[in-house]
Amino acid sequence: MTKNSFGHLFRVTTFGESHGPALGAVVDGCPPHLPLDEEYLSKEMEQRRPGTSPASTTRMEPDRVEILSGVFEGLTTGTPIGLLIRSTGARPKDYDHLRSVFRPGHADYTYFKKYGIRDHRGGGRCSGRETAARVAAGGVAGRFLEREKIEVHAYTLELGGVRAESFDLDNVDSSPFLCPDPDASALMTERVEEVKAAGDSLGGIVEVRVSGAPPGLGEPVFGKLSAYLAYAIMGIGAVKGVEIGSGFHAAKRLGSENNDPILPDGFASNNAGGILGGISTGQEIVLRAAVKPISSIAIPQDTIDQEGRPTTIQVEGRHDISAVPRIVPVMKAMVRIAIADMVLMQRALQG
Amino acid sequence: MTKNSFGHLFRVTTFGESHGPALGAVVDGCPPHLPLDEEYLSKEMEQRRPGTSPASTTRMEPDRVEILSGVFEGLTTGTPIGLLIRSTGARPKDYDHLRSVFRPGHADYTYFKKYGIRDHRGGGRCSGRETAARVAAGGVAGRFLEREKIEVHAYTLELGGVRAESFDLDNVDSSPFLCPDPDASALMTERVEEVKAAGDSLGGIVEVRVSGAPPGLGEPVFGKLSAYLAYAIMGIGAVKGVEIGSGFHAAKRLGSENNDPILPDGFASNNAGGILGGISTGQEIVLRAAVKPISSIAIPQDTIDQEGRPTTIQVEGRHDISAVPRIVPVMKAMVRIAIADMVLMQRALQG
Amino acid sequence: MTKNSFGHLFRVTTFGESHGPALGAVVDGCPPHLPLDEEYLSKEMEQRRPGTSPASTTRMEPDRVEILSGVFEGLTTGTPIGLLIRSTGARPKDYDHLRSVFRPGHADYTYFKKYGIRDHRGGGRCSGRETAARVAAGGVAGRFLEREKIEVHAYTLELGGVRAESFDLDNVDSSPFLCPDPDASALMTERVEEVKAAGDSLGGIVEVRVSGAPPGLGEPVFGKLSAYLAYAIMGIGAVKGVEIGSGFHAAKRLGSENNDPILPDGFASNNAGGILGGISTGQEIVLRAAVKPISSIAIPQDTIDQEGRPTTIQVEGRHDISAVPRIVPVMKAMVRIAIADMVLMQRALQG
Amino acid sequence: MTKNSFGHLFRVTTFGESHGPALGAVVDGCPPHLPLDEEYLSKEMEQRRPGTSPASTTRMEPDRVEILSGVFEGLTTGTPIGLLIRSTGARPKDYDHLRSVFRPGHADYTYFKKYGIRDHRGGGRCSGRETAARVAAGGVAGRFLEREKIEVHAYTLELGGVRAESFDLDNVDSSPFLCPDPDASALMTERVEEVKAAGDSLGGIVEVRVSGAPPGLGEPVFGKLSAYLAYAIMGIGAVKGVEIGSGFHAAKRLGSENNDPILPDGFASNNAGGILGGISTGQEIVLRAAVKPISSIAIPQDTIDQEGRPTTIQVEGRHDISAVPRIVPVMKAMVRIAIADMVLMQRALQG
Repeated sequence: MTKNSFGHLFRVTTFGESHGPALGAVVDGCPPHLPLDEEYLSKEMEQRRPGTSPASTTRMEPDRVEILSGVFEGLTTGTPIGLLIRSTGARPKDYDHLRSVFRPGHADYTYFKKYGIRDHRGGGRCSGRETAARVAAGGVAGRFLEREKIEVHAYTLELGGVRAESFDLDNVDSSPFLCPDPDASALMTERVEEVKAAGDSLGGIVEVRVSGAPPGLGEPVFGKLSAYLAYAIMGIGAVKGVEIGSGFHAAKRLGSENNDPILPDGFASNNAGGILGGISTGQEIVLRAAVKPISSIAIPQDTIDQEGRPTTIQVEGRHDISAVPRIVPVMKAMVRIAIADMVLMQRALQG
Repeated sequence: MTKNSFGHLFRVTTFGESHGPALGAVVDGCPPHLPLDEEYLSKEMEQRRPGTSPASTTRMEPDRVEILSGVFEGLTTGTPIGLLIRSTGARPKDYDHLRSVFRPGHADYTYFKKYGIRDHRGGGRCSGRETAARVAAGGVAGRFLEREKIEVHAYTLELGGVRAESFDLDNVDSSPFLCPDPDASALMTERVEEVKAAGDSLGGIVEVRVSGAPPGLGEPVFGKLSAYLAYAIMGIGAVKGVEIGSGFHAAKRLGSENNDPILPDGFASNNAGGILGGISTGQEIVLRAAVKPISSIAIPQDTIDQEGRPTTIQVEGRHDISAVPRIVPVMKAMVRIAIADMVLMQRALQG
Repeated sequence: MTKNSFGHLFRVTTFGESHGPALGAVVDGCPPHLPLDEEYLSKEMEQRRPGTSPASTTRMEPDRVEILSGVFEGLTTGTPIGLLIRSTGARPKDYDHLRSVFRPGHADYTYFKKYGIRDHRGGGRCSGRETAARVAAGGVAGRFLEREKIEVHAYTLELGGVRAESFDLDNVDSSPFLCPDPDASALMTERVEEVKAAGDSLGGIVEVRVSGAPPGLGEPVFGKLSAYLAYAIMGIGAVKGVEIGSGFHAAKRLGSENNDPILPDGFASNNAGGILGGISTGQEIVLRAAVKPISSIAIPQDTIDQEGRPTTIQVEGRHDISAVPRIVPVMKAMVRIAIADMVLMQRALQG
Repeated sequence: MTKNSFGHLFRVTTFGESHGPALGAVVDGCPPHLPLDEEYLSKEMEQRRPGTSPASTTRMEPDRVEILSGVFEGLTTGTPIGLLIRSTGARPKDYDHLRSVFRPGHADYTYFKKYGIRDHRGGGRCSGRETAARVAAGGVAGRFLEREKIEVHAYTLELGGVRAESFDLDNVDSSPFLCPDPDASALMTERVEEVKAAGDSLGGIVEVRVSGAPPGLGEPVFGKLSAYLAYAIMGIGAVKGVEIGSGFHAAKRLGSENNDPILPDGFASNNAGGILGGISTGQEIVLRAAVKPISSIAIPQDTIDQEGRPTTIQVEGRHDISAVPRIVPVMKAMVRIAIADMVLMQRALQG
């Protein structure tokens, strides 16, 4: 559960750089007898595909997932599922001018400090492109959760300061920002156009809701469900904050306001966000992530090169205005994987 | 890295219930040749000791740490360090009336759902008392960080809506709330007394700062330093949110505001909170946790018992008004352990 | 699953040096609702207690196990079980002459090379005494396996070249060597007395049999049940070889001899030792370990001290002639823990 | 460190079935700045390629390794290295008659019992073909060990009862059985032809020697270097026993024979096989594995089908007479990976 692997019993390992030949994932520990095919997985990739939102770049990436192993006659077999996504839009030459310059807000500087070498092309391993492998793996987890009758929904709660006020999840897919509130979505379009014109970028908040999760998920003390979900979500690039239930708002409340009374037919409220003492209550699990504005902006910024000399950078070309809509399916994927893993962990205990 | 163990190379395993005979920790992977004795560790325990703050219970717990192994003639040997803290103030009978009632906001309900059995005495394993073992283990990590010239500071940033505005860390220990701002500390006292009189409780925000951490800490993709710290912090009871650097505030900012320009002599600002792309930049690492108000309040609350029958609970006796001051040293301990672990991980890479 | 922890879901962490204040274990992941008390565990310790066999030292070590956590009203609760064994016979002064000398065949040299510091008293962490914590933890695993109707038996198959020919397990406990063959046991006594008089020591072979294990245990590829058991057994000091089923004998056989035909009512033979493709078949699991002769002998041996100067060592005092009888309960403990862990792993899969 | 992943800091995850579209490995944690290209890796695959020995099948498998990530301009970058081996000789139809029959000695029965579903084509995941991914990953480890000046050699020590008596490693590659003794190699040819004519198969013993390993490798107690190597080797299909140094022979020896005296210029002998107390001594590390005769034989064998009905099986077609020569490079690969991992573990400690 570190580096490029995530999960204990349902474990995902990913690899691949932005402009390398391919990205991929190995899903180890997936239960057998689940239906899985390339059609389904490629469909799962649709939501993260850019070019469908004004906040996104227009680069085309028709991601097709190839299943290399672990599936026999349409069913998972319990052996590791190898997933491959060939890169098609790779144009490494576009990045030659960034070979020795550190882009502010990006991981260029830190990867260089950590490894002493880096693949500068499009961010290499720390590109948002890396998340394609997570979404594919999340699709596999989704198949398992379907059988368990657990559903994970993610959407944009806030973008550039515009916050959703209505939450009909049927509206999410039709919004270019994956926002459930059509009015907010319209305002987001305005805000994005405005900021795009200024060459700047925007942050926002993504919310995830898990319904159908049984009580008992999560491990005691260090391995709390809340801790594990925070780990899953903070491991997504550009995420700078995570909260569960009433979250940071709880810091300002009284106990009498924040406690959820328990009635014979269930909890009277859900300030806990479905998690008490690090273990799921059986209620809806609710969490939010703060996403910083995208670091690549068209406004000139001060930086240095690999030799420490000062220079100025102005990122041009195809770049997203906000990472938010693209992070929505990634958060969904990570939460699916984490919940699938915790369901298996709890199953081992109960037997 | 789950359940009751934390860490990869510097790994801590804890055990113990609130009213059992003892709590303890095993610290495995601690480098050899570090000075360690019981005097030092018992001193480390002082800060978490209740009864020093108006927000804390008055129960006396003079925690004394016994070193059972891993130290020879005052130096660590590289073998696992067994730490034991005997319980002295245990009064299990005080909890007989809670045997079959689920306290709202506590983990009583979820532990019962998870395990089908629970030690109801003072919350059992999910009591705040469990953190004593973490603080002892964090003291061991502290010895290692000392040698690495890395310092971890934690303090109360906000309590009951009162926020610190000045940050002289020399003031922390003299504040009953471990708050660096004496004026805020005075206001916190007022707020706490007020809420105490009403039988209610308060939440708040704890901030941690790590100075001296080298660039390069943190693992790529899933194992980002930010993710790992979020995992460490969210694994503390009562924490409902974590943020790094500009955190949730970043969600409302423009890229041009949030990016930290890089100059030949370092970063011009630190909105990143010392972490870019999940890897430390070499700047100060800054993170905050939202702590919910303590669930045990003297106001009657609706709940149910183990058979699902409705009842009312009103928690009396010695209880904290806020978990915040007691969580300060726990957060410090968890961050120390996490950073120690990541230093060892990076060392393996560089060799 | 490294250093001082063993297991994935049923995980044991141990600590303690030969002549330190205490040894202990934390058993994390033990299922709830199992009966457990100190009486039972202390009884489990009996078999490894020396002084009952002519091959063993006469030092008295009445090991008493204290349960520090994880048990409530006589039942396990699912939280970590802390086990403590206080040292009573510690006489560290006895080892002053070994402070800077490396005993041949012992880990003195390698611990010093690894850590640059070592607790020389009785071998410190690498003493056979360390296994007391394993046996206690194995007792906990035993409680779980009882409920699963899985039994683990271990005995001395060979000692000093004398091999058991009859296998009535009822004879094991009455043999000073834990050997099921009374005739072999008598010959072993002769051989041991002879070698003892010469100041020398003896090796041997321990066999373990697991009955009642269901088919399906073991993980594919790297985590084969055979691999996991080999890991468990080779992690015991003095073990230099492990084999499953026909083992090294299989290297000399034909496929037509070694294959086990499958009949409608089960396998016709068990050359596989109950494991095919790394997964249990449902037959008896059979494995053997080669134990080297004890390194401490009364015959003078060439060695060096910490400064590299040549010296001679002659180990006197209370020392075993063979590790074999004492390793029998340790092997049983390790196999119990490994099987318990694999049962939980398989349970997670089946759900 | 279970299922389809191996290693702590240098970690390999593999996937792929015998007759699926591809096999692959992800090598996570490989240090940066190592030269790596497809030419080198494909060359590493040569030794395991069948058809070069009379003991091997004649099926052609020109394994070509594609590097999908983790390498930039010919150097490793520290990010995960994705390796892909496309299947070319897959003829799944050849296995239709085995769809519901369990081959004796194979994992058909146990995989079905474990997962309730299996890919019957050529053994699926439990085919020897799976090891191609290990050899590719071992090649990556080899690059790291080169820089550390550590060499791993593997060869056939015994085949069908014929044992090598001379050990000039220069002879290994020219022997069809990868045996260092040309005379033994000639006798092996005779033995293989004889058994082949009878439709039977042969077992043997593979030996591995590691030179240049520094002292200090291996983790205490459960994670002994010997235990870890045993785990690595027993995780290879068909291996039924592992021994280190004098191994099972030690069980019959006296302490005075088996101890290695320590002289000022080093150990006087190496019965320990380079490992004392589970930690490397700095001497050559020597280990051996017992390989059972291949289960697929042309002689009719009793078995059952998936419905439990008795049937007879007679395996025809392209099959190896012994797994031994093909396991030689796999053992080398696994030991390389394990040693690379332990070098990184020790590096973290020393820093």
